[in-house]
Amino acid sequence: MHAGKKYSLKEFILWTRRDIYRLTILAVIPTVLYHFCGFTFLSISWVPVALLGTAVSFIIGFKNNASYARLWEARQIYGGIINVSRSFGVMVRDLLRSKNKQQDVQIIFYRHFAWLTALRFQLRENRVWENMNDLRNIEYAQNYHTAEKTNKLEDVLAQYLSAEELAYILTKKNKATQIMALQSNHINKLATAGSFSDLQLQSLQAGIAAFYDNQGKAERIKNFPYPRHFSSIASIMLNLFVFLVPYGLLNDFNKLGSGTLIEGYSIWLNIPFAILLTWVFNTLDVVGESSTNPFEGSANDVPITNISRTMEIDMRDMLDETNLPPALTPENNILM
Amino acid sequence: MHAGKKYSLKEFILWTRRDIYRLTILAVIPTVLYHFCGFTFLSISWVPVALLGTAVSFIIGFKNNASYARLWEARQIYGGIINVSRSFGVMVRDLLRSKNKQQDVQIIFYRHFAWLTALRFQLRENRVWENMNDLRNIEYAQNYHTAEKTNKLEDVLAQYLSAEELAYILTKKNKATQIMALQSNHINKLATAGSFSDLQLQSLQAGIAAFYDNQGKAERIKNFPYPRHFSSIASIMLNLFVFLVPYGLLNDFNKLGSGTLIEGYSIWLNIPFAILLTWVFNTLDVVGESSTNPFEGSANDVPITNISRTMEIDMRDMLDETNLPPALTPENNILM
Amino acid sequence: MHAGKKYSLKEFILWTRRDIYRLTILAVIPTVLYHFCGFTFLSISWVPVALLGTAVSFIIGFKNNASYARLWEARQIYGGIINVSRSFGVMVRDLLRSKNKQQDVQIIFYRHFAWLTALRFQLRENRVWENMNDLRNIEYAQNYHTAEKTNKLEDVLAQYLSAEELAYILTKKNKATQIMALQSNHINKLATAGSFSDLQLQSLQAGIAAFYDNQGKAERIKNFPYPRHFSSIASIMLNLFVFLVPYGLLNDFNKLGSGTLIEGYSIWLNIPFAILLTWVFNTLDVVGESSTNPFEGSANDVPITNISRTMEIDMRDMLDETNLPPALTPENNILM
Amino acid sequence: MHAGKKYSLKEFILWTRRDIYRLTILAVIPTVLYHFCGFTFLSISWVPVALLGTAVSFIIGFKNNASYARLWEARQIYGGIINVSRSFGVMVRDLLRSKNKQQDVQIIFYRHFAWLTALRFQLRENRVWENMNDLRNIEYAQNYHTAEKTNKLEDVLAQYLSAEELAYILTKKNKATQIMALQSNHINKLATAGSFSDLQLQSLQAGIAAFYDNQGKAERIKNFPYPRHFSSIASIMLNLFVFLVPYGLLNDFNKLGSGTLIEGYSIWLNIPFAILLTWVFNTLDVVGESSTNPFEGSANDVPITNISRTMEIDMRDMLDETNLPPALTPENNILM
Amino acid sequence: MHAGKKYSLKEFILWTRRDIYRLTILAVIPTVLYHFCGFTFLSISWVPVALLGTAVSFIIGFKNNASYARLWEARQIYGGIINVSRSFGVMVRDLLRSKNKQQDVQIIFYRHFAWLTALRFQLRENRVWENMNDLRNIEYAQNYHTAEKTNKLEDVLAQYLSAEELAYILTKKNKATQIMALQSNHINKLATAGSFSDLQLQSLQAGIAAFYDNQGKAERIKNFPYPRHFSSIASIMLNLFVFLVPYGLLNDFNKLGSGTLIEGYSIWLNIPFAILLTWVFNTLDVVGESSTNPFEGSANDVPITNISRTMEIDMRDMLDETNLPPALTPENNILM
Repeated sequence: MHAGKKYSLKEFILWTRRDIYRLTILAVIPTVLYHFCGFTFLSISWVPVALLGTAVSFIIGFKNNASYARLWEARQIYGGIINVSRSFGVMVRDLLRSKNKQQDVQIIFYRHFAWLTALRFQLRENRVWENMNDLRNIEYAQNYHTAEKTNKLEDVLAQYLSAEELAYILTKKNKATQIMALQSNHINKLATAGSFSDLQLQSLQAGIAAFYDNQGKAERIKNFPYPRHFSSIASIMLNLFVFLVPYGLLNDFNKLGSGTLIEGYSIWLNIPFAILLTWVFNTLDVVGESSTNPFEGSANDVPITNISRTMEIDMRDMLDETNLPPALTPENNILM
Repeated sequence: MHAGKKYSLKEFILWTRRDIYRLTILAVIPTVLYHFCGFTFLSISWVPVALLGTAVSFIIGFKNNASYARLWEARQIYGGIINVSRSFGVMVRDLLRSKNKQQDVQIIFYRHFAWLTALRFQLRENRVWENMNDLRNIEYAQNYHTAEKTNKLEDVLAQYLSAEELAYILTKKNKATQIMALQSNHINKLATAGSFSDLQLQSLQAGIAAFYDNQGKAERIKNFPYPRHFSSIASIMLNLFVFLVPYGLLNDFNKLGSGTLIEGYSIWLNIPFAILLTWVFNTLDVVGESSTNPFEGSANDVPITNISRTMEIDMRDMLDETNLPPALTPENNILM
Repeated sequence: MHAGKKYSLKEFILWTRRDIYRLTILAVIPTVLYHFCGFTFLSISWVPVALLGTAVSFIIGFKNNASYARLWEARQIYGGIINVSRSFGVMVRDLLRSKNKQQDVQIIFYRHFAWLTALRFQLRENRVWENMNDLRNIEYAQNYHTAEKTNKLEDVLAQYLSAEELAYILTKKNKATQIMALQSNHINKLATAGSFSDLQLQSLQAGIAAFYDNQGKAERIKNFPYPRHFSSIASIMLNLFVFLVPYGLLNDFNKLGSGTLIEGYSIWLNIPFAILLTWVFNTLDVVGESSTNPFEGSANDVPITNISRTMEIDMRDMLDETNLPPALTPENNILM
Repeated sequence: MHAGKKYSLKEFILWTRRDIYRLTILAVIPTVLYHFCGFTFLSISWVPVALLGTAVSFIIGFKNNASYARLWEARQIYGGIINVSRSFGVMVRDLLRSKNKQQDVQIIFYRHFAWLTALRFQLRENRVWENMNDLRNIEYAQNYHTAEKTNKLEDVLAQYLSAEELAYILTKKNKATQIMALQSNHINKLATAGSFSDLQLQSLQAGIAAFYDNQGKAERIKNFPYPRHFSSIASIMLNLFVFLVPYGLLNDFNKLGSGTLIEGYSIWLNIPFAILLTWVFNTLDVVGESSTNPFEGSANDVPITNISRTMEIDMRDMLDETNLPPALTPENNILM
Repeated sequence: MHAGKKYSLKEFILWTRRDIYRLTILAVIPTVLYHFCGFTFLSISWVPVALLGTAVSFIIGFKNNASYARLWEARQIYGGIINVSRSFGVMVRDLLRSKNKQQDVQIIFYRHFAWLTALRFQLRENRVWENMNDLRNIEYAQNYHTAEKTNKLEDVLAQYLSAEELAYILTKKNKATQIMALQSNHINKLATAGSFSDLQLQSLQAGIAAFYDNQGKAERIKNFPYPRHFSSIASIMLNLFVFLVPYGLLNDFNKLGSGTLIEGYSIWLNIPFAILLTWVFNTLDVVGESSTNPFEGSANDVPITNISRTMEIDMRDMLDETNLPPALTPENNILM
């Protein structure tokens, strides 16, 4: 996420400059044809364009709503992971009674960090419908780095899991799911050995269910994109609208200069105004699009690397560990 | 669901080509009458058409909202099934203590796959109000296949249930409900035999309640369509609007050519523009309609076959089985 | 609910024909006065009418949203009843251990059907603000029958309750509440007698709480109408709008015929167009209104008779009863 | 709440007559100046007024949405209280085993009525931002009476609490909170004495938590008004709009009469039309405003006196008491 | 929050006066150029401005929706803290059985106040994206004081924690989290010592989980701003719109005076009207912006200092303490 005050206009223009080139060409063509070739019949009525504009506003608004909802739900899910991690943490720390209490607690805590790790690596994998292969995003991604794309999963997991468990997990399809299954197995063994009462086991298992719940919700957002038919019709309509706007404005700008010193030249104002208008609608759509996949590794992602680190700090602080890792900070305002 | 980048414009045009034929006829009639028969009074004012357009925008927007919500809720429900399946799975695996532990666990796991199977077969049955009999969808359905329509339920269930249970279940009205009731019965018998404590039984029964909850929610979406009176009035209004648009634009396009080289011919531009405008509104409605029934077997369904398979893989992976079935992949971008 | 493909245009026109008569009169008056009496000043500007139209669109949209939400929530509540009934059913069936197990289970199951019956009878009672006394609905109601209005509660309850319990319940104010209280009492007595453990009692009591929860939610929708001040201002504004539209269109239609063969007669087109426009807005409101009270016995109700029957079938199927009652089917497409 | 069919137009006009006076003055001034003083330049363009109208529509719509949501949530909260009261009631009645069972149950039930009483008295206190001091509401409030404003809390509590508990509670800040704390204390004492098992105590305490939850939610709506900055900007914009409308319509109405028998007089139509339009927007705002505080004692409140009485009836009916109080009925259609 | 009737127009004008200066300059420039320099071609058509206005309305509406939702959710979260605090309070008070019962209860209660304190101090820290450094808010903040900015955390905590615990907590990263972890630890020790049963411990631990849940939700709103890309594009579009409006209105106001006594001067009306219109849109945005961060210390914050105090009063009243602190009252209508 962007953790600063705002994106500057300059950043926006740079980010969308390829769109601007395209919009410019679309605005120049009818203006030139109108002025130099006398194709004045190109100045279609504004009426159908306005009607189309209404429909486009509706559909872009609809998409932005859905997009914002997906981003916000993604953040809520990770918020849920934070909350359950804290209560699961204190429960394990305070309830467990075994000979090797300290060691057992640490194994469970570190396995939890392993789960957080596997989950964030899975969520930051690529999907066909995501936007990180767009030129604008490849370019902007140079301003920050995405830990899940630069590090290797097994290296990070090795910090948290025993060699044996690591080897086991690496053979599994859904690693996060099976790490949590290991957690369940360990806790049950401890309960059988008397380290937890039956009732305490029930509470801890409810914690594991809550982790699975949040994992599944995050995977839902990851694996079920904004429906492609909704998305495609929005693009088609936007492109149609953007194509027609410069034609619809021709007449107004032609008349504008009548009787003034720019008579005969005012038609050229059609170009900047058409660009401006179409850029606004186009950029609204780009903004919406850039939040529909909140785990794709873009600058507008939910900062799951940072949240996972925060969890690690909080939970190790519960154990009064002293060598806490530092919190992650934004890089060029981007916090991942 | 469509698991690719987008539907192409070509796919959209093919998909809606019967609508385009209809819209073309509606646009040609008034234009011809106006031009050749001199019925210039057909060029009704845009004012009532615009007002109707507002109302149509509202009602299509409303329907698309509801449609998207139904699709998204359907996906959430199946997400819920995933989440509870995982926690139910680890509980059964880790809690059960019986002589034939491995066998008992496997029976419960496989009966769960049977439940997933019966549920998805039930959800993919036909309903009167669904759209899979529309020509556009019959045609498009040739791009992919729907397992629940090509396979027979009893054949698939036979992979998961004992012959005795299979025979019993096939006599029942709501098979998914009664498979889950078998699950409850088995777990209770195990508990009575001491394989689960009373408290563990309570947790497992809460799992069964959660499965029933998600099954019931999916059946609600299946059996309670987008209300027919809302749907019908939307169609009526859209058709009215689509009929009037070509009349409302006549005047503007007639005037367009005045004093230019296409004078007297610009009226023909009415046809493409009317088609374009009405196509946009009509297609928005078609897009919305195609998500109101998210279990009908269309290309925009929730991919319940795929999700059920994923569950089977995850749960068999928990048991460290080695002959895991492959994950389902999209066929011509469509994942079922 | 309507369980078919759609309401036909003809059904809509018949259903709203009294409105059409009224709208026709409202459209004829200004047109006649304009044409025959020369009251051309009646052709008020479209500007204030359009502004009012915006406000009317907003308020009808708002009401339809609320109406749809009430209908959908009502269906969700009954969906909730289905889900809890199933898990309550298997719990009772599988947990109970008593000498007369089979009989005790059956008493509890049948008392549950009694609760479903009392609840649906209560929900289908009349309320002052409901619409079943409107001529349009009285007429349409001849297409189907509403079990709760043709049968007597005591007769149906007699199938499910012992004579003693029936007599007791008939003396009570809120019969559904007190039937469920009997259920609680019976289950507690069984627990005291050792047929359920304390923990199982807790689960069953949670089931009873869930039934009360859903009952209370349904009663909330039944007893708290769409707020009358919101509803009344919507009617007032709609009527105002419908009254003004024919005046606002006069001028446009008068000019329409100029220089054509219908010069001097085009004013008469004002009548069909005004009717058409006002009918659309009026019918949108009627559609919305007809879902605000989803338990009133209208063709657009939640099908609670059918759902209650489905529950009975499912639960008796759990007991392997053989004389299951048939599922309810739609009558002229209407499922109650 | 209004429990009838609708508010009549007459009631609305009476209710808003002071606004109508104000709107009339605002409409008369520009019309007179235009006509008699020749200030024709007062007829400002409709363009900025229409733009402002869009913004006003948005903000009033936004406020009405929030207002409806607050009212509906308030009703849901009280619905929640009903539902938990019923299940809490049957639990206490059926679980308790003590020597003085009947008496203990009654004390708990009646203390619950005391809590309902204290809560509704607290919720019907005045707040600075509420509207019951508006002339329109003072006037309308003569049609019904609000029990919490005519009775004294201590008198009503005396019917439900022992003298000792009453004296104790009257010294407390938040009386409802402390009555429920007494409930908790009593139930714990009974549990310690063996009248409830530990598990039953847990269920009952969950009930108490649910009551606190609903109480807190109701207090949230009571104590956190629709945010004053949102509310204030809405008023400012509405007033601006209402001021400008009569100026914006001047030109249209002046031209209306040209060439007709009312030439030169049609300007006077500006007054009724401006009043009509501004009244519609103003009244929409008044309607929204009158639901933002659903516990203020207005005719559009949630009927908490009635709901509390219903609870008392239902719970006393559970105890088979015979002298049940009557249900509250609407007074001039208003149910409190 | 503002706890009075409303913000006055004067307050709004003062609050936004810097915007008004800016808007005035933007309106004066084109008017002067048009009138004195004859740059009549500056009077661009209203058509693109109106279209832009639609998009701006949409995006400001969207932002205000999100902003209101964040504020309201923030209040709900603190409402949740109130509700759980009360039920946690009575549980601790009524369940605990130890030798030093009174002292133990008090330690737990006061540690809870410490948690409330640490939480509100954390929430009122500064974030880069918050608005308390805007001149308008710095100025307005002189009307009230924010306890968390004038007091020191350690001083306040010292009232509630033992010296030892205080010293421990001050070394921790997330102090609220670790205070609650102390609470968990204490309660577990009491349970081990027999002061709580296992089942009671489970209920208390559920309380702690609920506190963590609410803390995490509040931190989510604090640390995840309204997404910067949505926010930035809204600002850019608003500024563009505000820039163009005075150009778009030029023509209308120039024509306004034709033939009247202000002929040739009516162009100057462009300035007040452009300011008025742009001010309305700009202020709507400012109002929305001022609620997006409901814990920033602004006049429109959720009153968390006040709520925390209310909790302290309620809980100390449960212990029948007599020296209760006073409730916080608004300062110049602002309640923090």
